[in-house]
Amino acid sequence: MSINIPRGTKDILPGEVEKWQIIEGKAKEVSARFNYKEIRTPVFEHTDLFQRGVGDSTDIVQKEMYTFTDRGERSLTLRPEGTAPVTRSYVENKMFGLPGQPVKLYYIQPMFRYERPQAGRYRQFVQFGIEAMGSADPAIDAEVISLAMTVYQELGLKKLRLVINTLGDAESRKAHKDALIAHFEPRIEEFCSDCQNRLTKNPLRILDCKKDRDHDLMKTAPSILEYLNEESKNYFDQVKTSLDDMNIQYVIDPTLVRGLDYYNHTAFEIMSEAEGFGAITTLSGGGRYNGLVEDLGGPATPSIGFAMSLERLLLALEAEGITLETEEDLDCYVVALGDEAKKKSISILNDLRNAGIKSDKDYLDKKMKAQFKAADRLKARFVAILGEEELSKGIINVKNMESGEQKEVRIEELSTFVKQGK
Amino acid sequence: MSINIPRGTKDILPGEVEKWQIIEGKAKEVSARFNYKEIRTPVFEHTDLFQRGVGDSTDIVQKEMYTFTDRGERSLTLRPEGTAPVTRSYVENKMFGLPGQPVKLYYIQPMFRYERPQAGRYRQFVQFGIEAMGSADPAIDAEVISLAMTVYQELGLKKLRLVINTLGDAESRKAHKDALIAHFEPRIEEFCSDCQNRLTKNPLRILDCKKDRDHDLMKTAPSILEYLNEESKNYFDQVKTSLDDMNIQYVIDPTLVRGLDYYNHTAFEIMSEAEGFGAITTLSGGGRYNGLVEDLGGPATPSIGFAMSLERLLLALEAEGITLETEEDLDCYVVALGDEAKKKSISILNDLRNAGIKSDKDYLDKKMKAQFKAADRLKARFVAILGEEELSKGIINVKNMESGEQKEVRIEELSTFVKQGK
Repeated sequence: MSINIPRGTKDILPGEVEKWQIIEGKAKEVSARFNYKEIRTPVFEHTDLFQRGVGDSTDIVQKEMYTFTDRGERSLTLRPEGTAPVTRSYVENKMFGLPGQPVKLYYIQPMFRYERPQAGRYRQFVQFGIEAMGSADPAIDAEVISLAMTVYQELGLKKLRLVINTLGDAESRKAHKDALIAHFEPRIEEFCSDCQNRLTKNPLRILDCKKDRDHDLMKTAPSILEYLNEESKNYFDQVKTSLDDMNIQYVIDPTLVRGLDYYNHTAFEIMSEAEGFGAITTLSGGGRYNGLVEDLGGPATPSIGFAMSLERLLLALEAEGITLETEEDLDCYVVALGDEAKKKSISILNDLRNAGIKSDKDYLDKKMKAQFKAADRLKARFVAILGEEELSKGIINVKNMESGEQKEVRIEELSTFVKQGK
Repeated sequence: MSINIPRGTKDILPGEVEKWQIIEGKAKEVSARFNYKEIRTPVFEHTDLFQRGVGDSTDIVQKEMYTFTDRGERSLTLRPEGTAPVTRSYVENKMFGLPGQPVKLYYIQPMFRYERPQAGRYRQFVQFGIEAMGSADPAIDAEVISLAMTVYQELGLKKLRLVINTLGDAESRKAHKDALIAHFEPRIEEFCSDCQNRLTKNPLRILDCKKDRDHDLMKTAPSILEYLNEESKNYFDQVKTSLDDMNIQYVIDPTLVRGLDYYNHTAFEIMSEAEGFGAITTLSGGGRYNGLVEDLGGPATPSIGFAMSLERLLLALEAEGITLETEEDLDCYVVALGDEAKKKSISILNDLRNAGIKSDKDYLDKKMKAQFKAADRLKARFVAILGEEELSKGIINVKNMESGEQKEVRIEELSTFVKQGK
């Protein structure tokens, strides 16, 4: 009996993995260009990190976490998102004391959420994320947004929609929250039970509700933009100006709120507008979270970041018909005929590889024709053929598969010959 | 109150992560050169995969697994090793039917074992592994060993010890097993309770016991080499000849047995002989596992692989005093003085980055001196200085930090100038 892969997860196999290598390579290359450094955190964390850092009232913490007890009776949780772990690491490793501030980090790591699997949504998925920690300059908000846009654009995406909003500072949020409560409270019994719970805890999240989104009170709900104090307004203006200075186009959507509790000021989402992309159009989302480092035991540290789903990035590329160029050919395939030649081919192949040449041979005792077929399938640029006659003369027959040209080369000169022809 | 990282795990931070990028890059590059393709499997699998694929009697399955029940009542386990998941994927995705045989795969993935943390041993650790599936050619055993040795040697390791052995085929193993039982049974009560349990289940593992290793019966235990049938002996001879043909040196150790149940024929370990490396000297281990694919529901498929601990590879490099060259410099740092220049620096930086130039600026409203200090710390090759005077003239002052030379450049020509000087 065979054992299957767990529901909602997938293998990434040769043929598809090359696309992942390309998009991850692009994310790493752009991050380096923007002077962000990689960080890696463990797959699991103490459960209370997410309860505290993501927020007890969120769907993630309430319904979607992979939580378990280890053999030492610790409650651990597979990382559902990347910001809380990076912030935990920032505090634990006292990165606020490093000479280079702000601390600019990126990660490419698997995340885990127990959700209903559907197209483009898996229980294990990969996020590329950025965290810029220690600066309250609106220009760095624009830098972070620009980094995400650069990754998409350099991979070829054109049908992108950048939506921004501000959630304001604590004072503005408080004023907005009071206005929201006053707006919804009189008719809250017309809303779902989740929304009724949200009313006093976090009324902003009512605007995010999928069940009640067509209720008429949704359209007339007070906008955060009307409740911004001078500082918050000014901050948002500077973010917009910085984006303008970089020629980055955006749309302002005052209903854009983030699912996680720790955001303030700038919030943004990047969506795909490609036709046939399906219901889920959000490719990445992010924003400022000035309070989180302090919540997790560090000093007050203004921070901003985003998380980008790599699964959705691949779907967006597909929806726009963009093919990633993958390099899958071989430099040289060694064809050997007869026992002695077969034995000799082991050291020949070894020499080729030691010289840095991508090469292979048959390991199934195939006939000549089948060996040539394998060389074809692997798109070998050269095929080196060794029979008993060649072996006795110390030479090998090298065929250039593009030109069809064939040449006798001394065995010890094969690597040099292939390298020159590459 | 702050939250700590789970015991036995670690963050990999900037400053250290660059070493990981280099060794992983080397593993990927050598794998490609040997024509192995990447595979990625989920972090967790159904628990019975490991019970079946690793073996119920192993320490891993009995004591060290992170097993939990998900919200759908499935028993899942964080992957403690890579061979069973890759084999599961091979069967599930019917890779035995692919035109290119053998299927040659590599992975670089985190593994999870609940062990006592100590130097070089973590509960989450990273393994680079190889699986060559579908060939019974002794030359591919040598290829797999050669791949591991090539990774180590090209990173600079010199003090390596390759130990090989054969466990024989089923018939030879049966004969050896009977001889082992006959050898240990009369005095088995002098051994630990684990060994007493192993006697009938898997007496080969008694030879692996740490508690009883000094017992006199250990030294006189029958060697597998005396019980090999003709075919197994011949197979082992050909592996050795192939290694000789590649000039790979090895030592034969008939007591080398592998902790996992599914091995047969070739087994090997690569150790570090560097002084001061500490107690754990095994860097990687592998071998043939011809029965595993069939055990997991696929057709009989002769296979061989290895797993290499990347944590121990880093320790071995350190023990041999090898420093990996990391590239951590910046092409250009933009210094801006005054509000207007600061605003302009946003688009200048954006242009530099769009041109592929690794660059950065200040986001903390620092004075000129502190901005220069940051440029120094980041090892910037060029510093581009923009004050109000320069801005009014449309130029920027560029200083080559190596030569000390300073030059005025038109703002729109900055990218070209930096690129030429790179």
